[in-house]
Amino acid sequence: MAETWKTAISRIRPNEVRVRGYDIAELMGRVSFGSAVYLILRGDLPPEPVGRLMDAILVSSIDHGPTPPSALGARSVASTGASQSAAVAAGIASINRWHGGAIQDCAGQLRRIVERSQLQNRSLADSAADELQEMAARRERMSGFGHRVHTSDPRTARLFSLAAEIGLDGPHVRAVRAVEAALVKRGKPLPINVDGAIGALLADLGFEPGVMNGIFMIARAPGLVAHVFEEQTREKPMRRIDPDPDKQEYDGPAPRRLDD
Amino acid sequence: MAETWKTAISRIRPNEVRVRGYDIAELMGRVSFGSAVYLILRGDLPPEPVGRLMDAILVSSIDHGPTPPSALGARSVASTGASQSAAVAAGIASINRWHGGAIQDCAGQLRRIVERSQLQNRSLADSAADELQEMAARRERMSGFGHRVHTSDPRTARLFSLAAEIGLDGPHVRAVRAVEAALVKRGKPLPINVDGAIGALLADLGFEPGVMNGIFMIARAPGLVAHVFEEQTREKPMRRIDPDPDKQEYDGPAPRRLDD
Amino acid sequence: MAETWKTAISRIRPNEVRVRGYDIAELMGRVSFGSAVYLILRGDLPPEPVGRLMDAILVSSIDHGPTPPSALGARSVASTGASQSAAVAAGIASINRWHGGAIQDCAGQLRRIVERSQLQNRSLADSAADELQEMAARRERMSGFGHRVHTSDPRTARLFSLAAEIGLDGPHVRAVRAVEAALVKRGKPLPINVDGAIGALLADLGFEPGVMNGIFMIARAPGLVAHVFEEQTREKPMRRIDPDPDKQEYDGPAPRRLDD
Amino acid sequence: MAETWKTAISRIRPNEVRVRGYDIAELMGRVSFGSAVYLILRGDLPPEPVGRLMDAILVSSIDHGPTPPSALGARSVASTGASQSAAVAAGIASINRWHGGAIQDCAGQLRRIVERSQLQNRSLADSAADELQEMAARRERMSGFGHRVHTSDPRTARLFSLAAEIGLDGPHVRAVRAVEAALVKRGKPLPINVDGAIGALLADLGFEPGVMNGIFMIARAPGLVAHVFEEQTREKPMRRIDPDPDKQEYDGPAPRRLDD
Repeated sequence: MAETWKTAISRIRPNEVRVRGYDIAELMGRVSFGSAVYLILRGDLPPEPVGRLMDAILVSSIDHGPTPPSALGARSVASTGASQSAAVAAGIASINRWHGGAIQDCAGQLRRIVERSQLQNRSLADSAADELQEMAARRERMSGFGHRVHTSDPRTARLFSLAAEIGLDGPHVRAVRAVEAALVKRGKPLPINVDGAIGALLADLGFEPGVMNGIFMIARAPGLVAHVFEEQTREKPMRRIDPDPDKQEYDGPAPRRLDD
Repeated sequence: MAETWKTAISRIRPNEVRVRGYDIAELMGRVSFGSAVYLILRGDLPPEPVGRLMDAILVSSIDHGPTPPSALGARSVASTGASQSAAVAAGIASINRWHGGAIQDCAGQLRRIVERSQLQNRSLADSAADELQEMAARRERMSGFGHRVHTSDPRTARLFSLAAEIGLDGPHVRAVRAVEAALVKRGKPLPINVDGAIGALLADLGFEPGVMNGIFMIARAPGLVAHVFEEQTREKPMRRIDPDPDKQEYDGPAPRRLDD
Repeated sequence: MAETWKTAISRIRPNEVRVRGYDIAELMGRVSFGSAVYLILRGDLPPEPVGRLMDAILVSSIDHGPTPPSALGARSVASTGASQSAAVAAGIASINRWHGGAIQDCAGQLRRIVERSQLQNRSLADSAADELQEMAARRERMSGFGHRVHTSDPRTARLFSLAAEIGLDGPHVRAVRAVEAALVKRGKPLPINVDGAIGALLADLGFEPGVMNGIFMIARAPGLVAHVFEEQTREKPMRRIDPDPDKQEYDGPAPRRLDD
Repeated sequence: MAETWKTAISRIRPNEVRVRGYDIAELMGRVSFGSAVYLILRGDLPPEPVGRLMDAILVSSIDHGPTPPSALGARSVASTGASQSAAVAAGIASINRWHGGAIQDCAGQLRRIVERSQLQNRSLADSAADELQEMAARRERMSGFGHRVHTSDPRTARLFSLAAEIGLDGPHVRAVRAVEAALVKRGKPLPINVDGAIGALLADLGFEPGVMNGIFMIARAPGLVAHVFEEQTREKPMRRIDPDPDKQEYDGPAPRRLDD
C-alpha cells in the first residue's frame, strides 16, 4: 500500500482546515450553510443570491411530517432502543428512488428535453411534447409531477418565485414548465411537485443528477433528527407506530407568521 | 389501533406544510437553513443573529477530510456498489460517543459545573477546579479538550469570536473557559477543541445534550455526501482505502480567500 | 502505520481459509451452521449435541411474522427502492435493548443470581427471591419473562426439553426456573419467554452476554431477508405498511407436519 | 387503512409460531439452520441431504478475515462506540454488487447459457462459448471466476464434491464447468471461485438470483458479529484500522483438524 490516493474535498493540516481551498474559519459566519453545501458539492462558492436559494431549497425539504417512510423507519428503529445515529441512519437509508429520487429522475428527464431542443433546434414546447409521446410509448412516467397530498404545492410556487427574484432563468426550469403545459394538452394535467421544482433548479445551478439524492438527504436530516428525538423522549419503546395520518395528531404550536 | 399518537414537529394538510407552526413557504427564502434547524429542534425561530451563529456552527463541522471513521466507513460501503443513501447512512451511523459525542459529553460536564456554581454560590473558576478534581478521582476525562491534529483549532477561536460579536455570553461558555484555565493550573494544559466550543455554545443556546449528536449529524451530512460521491465517481470498486493521512493526497483547489 | 494489529478469528492465505484454526473446507459438510456459529464466537467447536442445540436456538428465532420492528423497519426501507442489503441492515439495526435485548439482559440477571448463590452458599431459590426483592426496590424489571402474544411459548418448552435431552443442566437454566417459581410466590406469575430461555441456555454454554444480541441478529437474518424479498417482489413501492396484526393476513402454506 | 395486506412467511397466533406452515417448535432440534434458511426462502423444507448442503454453503462464507469491506466497515463503525447492531448493520449494508454480488450475477449468466442451450438444442459447451463471445463483444465480464487471493479456492472444490456426493447434478453446475473450459479455450483460464460455485449450486437448487445476495448476508452475519465483538473488546476506540493484510496478524488457534 505504498501509493497515495487523492481527494479534492478538504485539506487538513495542523491548525488549518480548508474546504475546496477555503479556510473553514473564514467561511464560518460569512456564508450560509446552504452556500457551504453548494461549495462542498460543486467545488466553488455560489454567488450570494444562489446561496440563499440553496438555503431555501434545503428548508423546503426539511420535513414532511411523520408519514414518509424515512420518518417512520427512523422512528421504528429508535423505538427499539437504538442509538440516535443508528435511527437517523435508517431514515437516511430510506431515501432512494421512490422517496426523494424524483428529484434526480426529473432532472435527468428534463436534461433529455433540453438536449433534444438544442440538437434539433426546436422549441422546448415541441421537445417536451415529443419526449412525453415517446415516454408514453415505453410506459415511462414523468417524475416530479403530482403529489399524494398536495394539488398545488406551496413549496413549488415559492421556489420558482425565489428563482425568478434572483434572475435564475435556466433551460431546465423552462423545460419543466413546458412539460406542465404539454401534460395539459395531453389531457393529463398534473402539477409540478416540490421534487420536480428542486430537480429543475438544481440542474440549472449545474448540479449533476447523481448528487441530487444526497442533497435531499442533507435537507431532510434535521427532520429525521427531530422525529428520532421526539420518539426517544415522548414515546414508549416498541410501540406500534401507525403510519395512517388520520391516526396522527399534531399538537405543536398553532399556525403563526414570521412577523408575529 | 383506534388511538391516535401525537407529534409536535410538522402539520401536513393539502397544499399546506407547517413546521412548528410556520408555513414552510413563508420560511423559504426568509430564514437560513441554520435557523430552520434551530426551529425544528428547539420549537421556535431564533433571533436572526443566533440563526447566523447556527449556520456558522454547522459550517464548522461540515467536513474534516477523509480520515474520520464516518468518512472512511461511508467510502468503504460506497466502494462495494452500495446506493448513495446506504453509504451516507453508514457514515451517519458512525457518529457516536467517540466521534462527535464529545459535543454532548462536554455540554453535560459544563452543565454540572454551572449548576455547582449556582447551587454553592461559588465562582465558575472554583467550581471548575472542584469538578476536575472529582473527575480525576473517578478517572473521568474532560470532553471537548485536545485534538489529534490541531493544537490551536481555528474553528474554536472563530466560534467564540462570532458568539461575542452577537453578545452571546452564557454560563457554559464561561464554564468552558474556566475549565481551560483550571487545566493549566493542574499542569495539564489542553486547548478547547471544536467539539467543546460547540457543546458550550449549543448549551448556552438552550439545546438539550440529547440532541447535540444529531446536530453534528446534520452538519456532517454534506461532507459525507461529498465523500461518497467522490468515491463513486473517482475510484474503482472494492479498493483498499488507506486511512493513513500520509497516504492521502489533496488535489483540489489551491488555498484561496473569500475576497479572491 | 508501521505496526500490525491482531485478530484471532480467521487466517487467510492463498488457497487456504482457516476459521479459529480449522480449515474451512474441512468444516464444510461436517459441521452444521449452528456449530460454526458457536466456533466463530466461542473460539472452539462444540460437542455435536451442543451444535444441534445451537441450530435449534437459531431456528427458534428465525422469524416472528411481520409485526416486530425489525421486520417492519426492513420492509419500510425496502419499499423506498432500497437495495436488499440496505433494507436488511435497517432490520439488523433494530435489534437492540427492547428487541432481542432481553436475551442478554436476562443472562446478566441470572448470572447475578448464580453468583449470589455461590458466594453466599445459599440455594438458587433463596438467591432468586432476594434478587427479585432488591430489583423490585430499585424498580428493575426481570427480563425474559412474559410475552405480548404467547402465555405459554412453545419455543421455551422445546428449548428446555432439547437441553435436557443432551444433558445440559447448568446453573443459569436452574436459576431461570428459580425465578419463575419466585415470581409465583410474589403473586406475579409470568412465563419464561423465548428470550429468557435462550439467555439461560447461552449462558450455560459459556457465551458472554455481550455477544448474545449478535446471536439474535444471526438467527433473525433469514427472516429479515424473507420479508425484504417478499416486500420487493409482492408489494408496490411506498405503500403504507400497517403494523396492526389484524390488518395482516397470512396466505402461505396451511399447517403441516414434518412427517406429512 | 381498512384493507389487509398479505404475507406468506409466518403465521403467529397465541402460543403458536408457524414458518411456511410448520410449527417452529417441531422444526427446532429436527432440522438444521441451513434447512430452515432453505424453508423460509424457498417455501418448503429441503430433502435432508440438501439441508446439509445448505449448511455447507453457509459455512463456506461465514468469514474471510478482516480485509473484506463488510468486516472493515463494521469494525470502523464499531470503533466509534456504536451499538453492536449498528456496526453489524454497516457490515450487512456492504454486501452489494461488488461484494457477494458475484453469486447472483454468475447465477444469472449461467441461466442465460442454460436457456440458450435448451432453446437452441445445443451443447452447454457450445452455448457457453457463444455466450462468452457475445459478452466479450459488449465488454461484460463473467462473474464468479478468479480471486484476488486464491488461485485454487478450496471451498469451490469442496462444494462441488459435496454436491456430487448427494447426487446434485444440475444444469447450472454443468454450465459453470462449461464456462471454465471455454475460458481455457479462449486463452484466458480462470478458476471458478466460491461465489461462482455457490451461484451455480443455489440456481440448481431452485433459488431465484434476487435472493442470493440475502443468502450471503445470512452466511456472513456470524463473521461480522465476531469482528464487531473483537473490535469492541480488544481494541481502543477510534483507532486507524489498516486494511492491508500485511499489517494484520492472526494470533488465534494454530492450525488444527476436526479429529484432533
